[in-house]
Amino acid sequence: MGEIYECIPNYSVGKDEETIEQIAGCFDDQEGVNLVDYSADEDHNRLVVTAIGSPDGLIKSCLESVRVAVDKIDMNEHTGEHPRMGAVDVVPFVPVKNATMEDAVDVARSLAEKIGGHFDIPVYLYEKAATSLDRENLADIRRGEYEGFSDKISKEEWMPDFGPGKVHPTAGVTAVGARKPLIAFNVNLKTDDLSVAKKISRRVRHSSGGFRYCKAMAVDLDEDNLTQVSMNMTDYSKTPLHHVYELIKSEADRYGVDVVESEIIGITPADALLDAAGHYLQLNDFSSEQVIENRLLEDL
Amino acid sequence: MGEIYECIPNYSVGKDEETIEQIAGCFDDQEGVNLVDYSADEDHNRLVVTAIGSPDGLIKSCLESVRVAVDKIDMNEHTGEHPRMGAVDVVPFVPVKNATMEDAVDVARSLAEKIGGHFDIPVYLYEKAATSLDRENLADIRRGEYEGFSDKISKEEWMPDFGPGKVHPTAGVTAVGARKPLIAFNVNLKTDDLSVAKKISRRVRHSSGGFRYCKAMAVDLDEDNLTQVSMNMTDYSKTPLHHVYELIKSEADRYGVDVVESEIIGITPADALLDAAGHYLQLNDFSSEQVIENRLLEDL
Repeated sequence: MGEIYECIPNYSVGKDEETIEQIAGCFDDQEGVNLVDYSADEDHNRLVVTAIGSPDGLIKSCLESVRVAVDKIDMNEHTGEHPRMGAVDVVPFVPVKNATMEDAVDVARSLAEKIGGHFDIPVYLYEKAATSLDRENLADIRRGEYEGFSDKISKEEWMPDFGPGKVHPTAGVTAVGARKPLIAFNVNLKTDDLSVAKKISRRVRHSSGGFRYCKAMAVDLDEDNLTQVSMNMTDYSKTPLHHVYELIKSEADRYGVDVVESEIIGITPADALLDAAGHYLQLNDFSSEQVIENRLLEDL
Repeated sequence: MGEIYECIPNYSVGKDEETIEQIAGCFDDQEGVNLVDYSADEDHNRLVVTAIGSPDGLIKSCLESVRVAVDKIDMNEHTGEHPRMGAVDVVPFVPVKNATMEDAVDVARSLAEKIGGHFDIPVYLYEKAATSLDRENLADIRRGEYEGFSDKISKEEWMPDFGPGKVHPTAGVTAVGARKPLIAFNVNLKTDDLSVAKKISRRVRHSSGGFRYCKAMAVDLDEDNLTQVSMNMTDYSKTPLHHVYELIKSEADRYGVDVVESEIIGITPADALLDAAGHYLQLNDFSSEQVIENRLLEDL
């Protein structure tokens, strides 16, 4: 098996069923690509596709989807709760198997160059693929959004990495990047008091003193009288799920609140959970070579 | 990816390096087969090979290895601590991916028929492949060993499933079977008092009242002043590793003894550890479809 990546492109369409299906379809019938999931949100007016596959297959699928998005989406008519700057808003690549982060950066650059060249869309490289420090953070690139980008792009420090120095009149601009796998990990608390979930979220997240690779916010789960610590784990190899879980449990306990359950939304690398099992079972000297599935992926 | 099995053939050779290498080599250069491990024990005078692969590849490798074993091993000159009845003593198949236990039984039958036909070796089907209840347990088939088999085979109830009704003069008889994956799971205790490990082993193992799919014995780890509860988990889906681990910890605690570490020897299906992670993290509604590696094995 060659290099395998996860690719999670985001498009500025959340209501037009036909366009949504057409974009998702670009990842469905492609050789070497597996469409894992796609979900559109009407309030955000945004579509998120998750696919895994070979670099060639994913780049082909992405380019086909850009063609559909350019055809069907007019950013001048787009409104939604989620910040955005283009019809194809952002395309991150995540190394999954037999690929390093440097390989993922190469794939991102290759796609970025093609989008810029074939579709006359300005493209910015971000996160691990960024060409300068002030382009690492996607939020910095996106600041000003589609409406403000005509001014922004004329500044020398915001010259795009690929494509023209001028916003595409209907498709805006696009960011392509490489990053670590992100795990959406939620822990549900047996209380309808949102202030407890808020206090715990502040304790676990990086921005207020918690774990380096954890983003967290409190969410009210009205229907079940529960509240949730909703998290994005941005590097499970350095901030393990089980450390975050244990801290949440201990903090909840301090408020007399039980943890009801946790959940992982979407896909996860097996390693994130194998690490947790190893921790709790006190597994010594365990190697991922000992997992049959990893043998199959490497050797057959 | 088609059907994938684990195959763990055992041969009655533990000292003759050349024969050991030649047998292992049959699994090393075969298309569709991955040699995971092989280890020979001089006291047992026995070689255990672990391989994973396609049914066709594994059957080819097995047949090549039977040819070597028949050529090189004379059971009349074989002695060792481990009970045995043939040069190729036992060949179990374990369904790993895209295969049911019924499929594994078919593969076992197919190999058994070929060994019986091509090499004039009587073959017995055992465990899930057994043709009658009294042939399910390998120990029942092997009772009497090589030396006693000429008498045993002449009894109607011990007529072999394939091959001649007469023991092969140098290669003896062979058992071929299908079974669930077995996980070798050990838990080390911070005491040199073997009686504690013995008492705990009796608590966790099936034969003395413990878990249905757990075999356990106490082992002295002289060099480290530790003792060990050494286990074979014969169906992790019904007797999970974490239940056994927790009981061992709780029993050890009762004797004032700490658990130092645990270990898995050899290979394991990822699911055994994913289940443990799910238990400790209170993961709700988690499906193995959410694991990227499983997606890759199923769909690419």
